[in-house]
Amino acid sequence: MKTVVVNLPEHGYTIYIASGLLKQSSLIQSKIQTKQICIVTNAEIADLYLPTLVESLQKNNEISIATVILLEGEPNKSQSALDSIYDCLIENRFSRDCLIIALGGGIVGDITGFAAASYQRGVDFIQIPTTLLAQVDSSVGGKTGINHRLGKNLIGAFHQPKAVFIDTDVLNTLPPREVTAGMAEVIKYGLIRDRDFLMYLDKKLDNIIQLDAKYLVELICISCQHKANVVEHDEKEKGNRAMLNLGHTFGHAIETLTNYQTYLHGEAIAIGTMMALELSRLMGWLKDSDVAFVENLFKRANCPTHLSVKLDSAEIRQAMQRDKKVSDGKLKLILLTELGKAIARSDIDEELISQAIESRLSVH
Amino acid sequence: MKTVVVNLPEHGYTIYIASGLLKQSSLIQSKIQTKQICIVTNAEIADLYLPTLVESLQKNNEISIATVILLEGEPNKSQSALDSIYDCLIENRFSRDCLIIALGGGIVGDITGFAAASYQRGVDFIQIPTTLLAQVDSSVGGKTGINHRLGKNLIGAFHQPKAVFIDTDVLNTLPPREVTAGMAEVIKYGLIRDRDFLMYLDKKLDNIIQLDAKYLVELICISCQHKANVVEHDEKEKGNRAMLNLGHTFGHAIETLTNYQTYLHGEAIAIGTMMALELSRLMGWLKDSDVAFVENLFKRANCPTHLSVKLDSAEIRQAMQRDKKVSDGKLKLILLTELGKAIARSDIDEELISQAIESRLSVH
Repeated sequence: MKTVVVNLPEHGYTIYIASGLLKQSSLIQSKIQTKQICIVTNAEIADLYLPTLVESLQKNNEISIATVILLEGEPNKSQSALDSIYDCLIENRFSRDCLIIALGGGIVGDITGFAAASYQRGVDFIQIPTTLLAQVDSSVGGKTGINHRLGKNLIGAFHQPKAVFIDTDVLNTLPPREVTAGMAEVIKYGLIRDRDFLMYLDKKLDNIIQLDAKYLVELICISCQHKANVVEHDEKEKGNRAMLNLGHTFGHAIETLTNYQTYLHGEAIAIGTMMALELSRLMGWLKDSDVAFVENLFKRANCPTHLSVKLDSAEIRQAMQRDKKVSDGKLKLILLTELGKAIARSDIDEELISQAIESRLSVH
Repeated sequence: MKTVVVNLPEHGYTIYIASGLLKQSSLIQSKIQTKQICIVTNAEIADLYLPTLVESLQKNNEISIATVILLEGEPNKSQSALDSIYDCLIENRFSRDCLIIALGGGIVGDITGFAAASYQRGVDFIQIPTTLLAQVDSSVGGKTGINHRLGKNLIGAFHQPKAVFIDTDVLNTLPPREVTAGMAEVIKYGLIRDRDFLMYLDKKLDNIIQLDAKYLVELICISCQHKANVVEHDEKEKGNRAMLNLGHTFGHAIETLTNYQTYLHGEAIAIGTMMALELSRLMGWLKDSDVAFVENLFKRANCPTHLSVKLDSAEIRQAMQRDKKVSDGKLKLILLTELGKAIARSDIDEELISQAIESRLSVH
């Protein structure tokens, strides 16, 4: 087992990463101090892993467990999903000392985290991410929230989990498309902070894609360590945490314009990242060969690098303006000055942004 | 002008208290660093004070101001009120750097504070409380939230304001019943922390009730100082902040059972406080004369000290069990060991609790 500690004043926590972790009853129970647990998940994950988790929680231990099954998909990251968690907690008379466990991907984790942040002004929660994307990114760092009909993640809070349990075995039942979507965020850590990690990924990508547990544990550990370091220095995204948003302003616009139907989050981020890299090239910071190297890495991980649907740069730019990263009307973009080094800029020429977008539009 | 500083790590702030403060444009502007302000208020307060506030904000200063008018009353402390604020912020494309101002009583302040806590994972807000209750209690300390159909304040967050502006002049247009409701919380600070303040109130109550600005500024300042001290030591109510809940577990039950229609919050708290004092007397801690002294103080402030509607002790006890202060099924009550000293207890005999409630039931 590998562990990563997230050092935050008053609410630090540990991430545990191992193959078969869900069955490690004593480890899981060691992080639990309540008799009231609410597990939030979705139908598919409940079928696969809920019995194992419940068994690990209840072994030699008398606790009352309530379960909320959320509908899947980004359109269901909504107020009504949040309400279903509140209703369960209140109807079961769960007190401030209760614990909420998110068992699922990023959507389950985000909604559950916000329910924990806002139920009785904040209760404990634990993340058990079941997608690669959630394991390397969204389950760590305390960003929680739901979508509003006018935009993604507009309602939410910063609320750190008490622990994160990552079992790499759950990736064996993950659709291959979800694995590759997770790889987009893994590659992102290399792009913004760690050139060596990019080289490691280039070398080991085939083992990783085949879900070799040894490499998965290592890759997730390195990714979580990067995420933890960034969050430790800027929990509330007042500064450098924004570097994690490489490709995200472009990617969110793509997700919004395709109604979250066409691309998985990681896929949209892969395309958005290529746009950010093109822009970095237009700024004179990246070489053609850098962009080609990353594009090749994305392609080997089966991530899209161009849009496959017809969108034009004007509508993408308009959707970007609605993004949370707009400050005083100015769009803040994360770019690379070289592979492994990111920078935030709010003064990029609009014409260059359009050019970067256009280089990644659908060729049809 | 008097000021009280709330010393909290990373998010401390100042409370400004003065007669005529709303017109002090330069003071108000000195706390504002954004061009996007959303003022949340209700129709009555908007008529009385919105133009003055807007003038103070805009004097020599170009800012865009959006206004949300909430419906009045506890039943409207709801998700739909919260949604109306989110909608305004999003439709006006307010960014993370915006500021939300709560201009109103405790309900407006609580809803607005939670909107600020949860919009884009947290934006700045300023409290301008317009009731005595909000000025001495709810505007300070960062408790925010809305009601759920099954209970009061079940959804919310801790989110501290950037500043609190208290203008004692607004109390001149406050219905007398609201002034006396505020006095219940003022008297509470004396009961739990400050016997001398109780003696001061006993001496000056007539001047206070007549809204003499000099005494109001002093009384509000002392009350805010008490609230600030408590919050500084226990921001998230893990321990001693619970002392502020003297009378509240009883009071919330009374509010719930009367559908928030019969009593103002402060009035329910006054009755609840008398129940807590009776219980403290039954425990052998308070003397008959202590209870009589406080009852007299409440009566002079026009606060109710007995229920006027027919409720029985069994239904009040049942409603109390649903309160947030229930931990592992045990009811935590705040009691007094003497006037000016509070204690939290979870082991009180149920029969004594019923007796205490019964001593304050309607005599009809």
